[in-house]
Amino acid sequence: MIKKITIVGGTHGNELIGPYLIRKLEQDKSFSQSAIPVDYLLANTEACKRASRFIDADLNRSFTDEILNNNDDSVYEHRRAREINQLLGPKANNDRFIIDLHSTTSNMGMTLIVRDQAAFNLQAASYVQQHMPDVKVILSDRDKSFSRTLNSLSDYAMAIEVGPLPNGVLRHDQFAETEVVIKHLIDFTLMRHSQQPTALPRTIDVYKVTERIQYPKSDDGHLSAMVHDSLQDKDFEGLKPGMPLFQNMDGTVTHYEGEPGFPIFINEAAYYYENTALVITRQETIALTG
Amino acid sequence: MIKKITIVGGTHGNELIGPYLIRKLEQDKSFSQSAIPVDYLLANTEACKRASRFIDADLNRSFTDEILNNNDDSVYEHRRAREINQLLGPKANNDRFIIDLHSTTSNMGMTLIVRDQAAFNLQAASYVQQHMPDVKVILSDRDKSFSRTLNSLSDYAMAIEVGPLPNGVLRHDQFAETEVVIKHLIDFTLMRHSQQPTALPRTIDVYKVTERIQYPKSDDGHLSAMVHDSLQDKDFEGLKPGMPLFQNMDGTVTHYEGEPGFPIFINEAAYYYENTALVITRQETIALTG
Repeated sequence: MIKKITIVGGTHGNELIGPYLIRKLEQDKSFSQSAIPVDYLLANTEACKRASRFIDADLNRSFTDEILNNNDDSVYEHRRAREINQLLGPKANNDRFIIDLHSTTSNMGMTLIVRDQAAFNLQAASYVQQHMPDVKVILSDRDKSFSRTLNSLSDYAMAIEVGPLPNGVLRHDQFAETEVVIKHLIDFTLMRHSQQPTALPRTIDVYKVTERIQYPKSDDGHLSAMVHDSLQDKDFEGLKPGMPLFQNMDGTVTHYEGEPGFPIFINEAAYYYENTALVITRQETIALTG
Repeated sequence: MIKKITIVGGTHGNELIGPYLIRKLEQDKSFSQSAIPVDYLLANTEACKRASRFIDADLNRSFTDEILNNNDDSVYEHRRAREINQLLGPKANNDRFIIDLHSTTSNMGMTLIVRDQAAFNLQAASYVQQHMPDVKVILSDRDKSFSRTLNSLSDYAMAIEVGPLPNGVLRHDQFAETEVVIKHLIDFTLMRHSQQPTALPRTIDVYKVTERIQYPKSDDGHLSAMVHDSLQDKDFEGLKPGMPLFQNMDGTVTHYEGEPGFPIFINEAAYYYENTALVITRQETIALTG
């Protein structure tokens, strides 16, 4: 049962929409009279000051049981993950709906990343899609025990990804669109809370991650290829075997050889750290229960 | 007289096209047989390793006489500016054509930033425009003594800016386009060197900076406005008094009140450091001499 809603910004300190949006909603007192209390959290406060993704480690990979249960203070984000677990958790406690605001340099438009521990998450995503048909839904891993993200603190959780947006930049159109998504999510939560009937479709189309494609590298550790121009900005468009994947620095082209799928996070800046050039998903239609 | 050409990448460590392009050109031996020697410089080596704009200070603001003539070793980029001055300079020495590769998060397309100490610079820009009519030319300050950029090391110098590109990302289309610009610049330099006749137009249209527009800020130092959606991505399009400039966080809109002009570097990520939301230019037609 959802008793609180927390809107999180700045889990990555170089993604500016979240921090500025929670600041605005707090100042506007937009949800201050809500039947379910709505509060706000600036997650990676130190990285936000520097407008960098993180200080020592990615905060959104730091919510594992191993990190939450140890006492090593050497990594700033691990300390901060434990603080946030105290504020929003503990991890097994499920009375809170967490909405974590992100942006991506990829051309993904407005995307909701949903965990399927609770039927509520997909229902809420479906409600957003009723009002904003272009919104895409990514369904992430079922198994919470492997989960490392801030959203793993509750079964009721969703990440909003909006793009394309360069890091360290605030864009008015995407800022406004993210605010609309939040309003729909809170409306839906309140309707469910008041047991107001909300007609939803019987199914929802989601994208599930099947593969991460790595950049080729030269012996000295530099990228030896770029995402091919014909694939750039084609997030959620079909990728089939034989289509161009990489433009290699030596002038040759590497073609895609995997299963047909829908690429996402194409040429995402943050994934250069992990050497991931793009992520392949498959589309699946899922029954909406409850 | 130009006796050497140096192509510089990585003056800003989070702009990836330059470093990867000089690496490719060096490996390809593209200009190894050139009648004028072509060499390559990775400028901010440490910032490139971290994919950050700079370590302690902006290298492209560090080529002042004051910094070049002192011995303070506390700022990495000031040390590096002195090293680069030894490699490419000294600052008054004008036998080298410097081409410095940059990218911008703004929607500026392909832009050449030219200094007008030498007629050659505008001629070379005009030659590029003959082959690539969409290329824009910005003419920067005449007075070299105030100049802080790497390009101020020689009278023969040009910066290439390509965008929109998020920091920390490599884009195939812009990478290839930048390579074409370099080839035209080197072709032109070689033709001039061999005294081959090259017919150019009699004039060139350039943009000159007239004003920098600051972000409004709240008392606690945060941005209180974003670039208005109707201005976003409209680099080089006319801005007139009365047109929307900022979307304020409180819901109001601020309108532009300055002289009519052509905005550039709209919502550029790096300019958040300097609190600059956009730069206004005026267009001017200049005679091509020489």
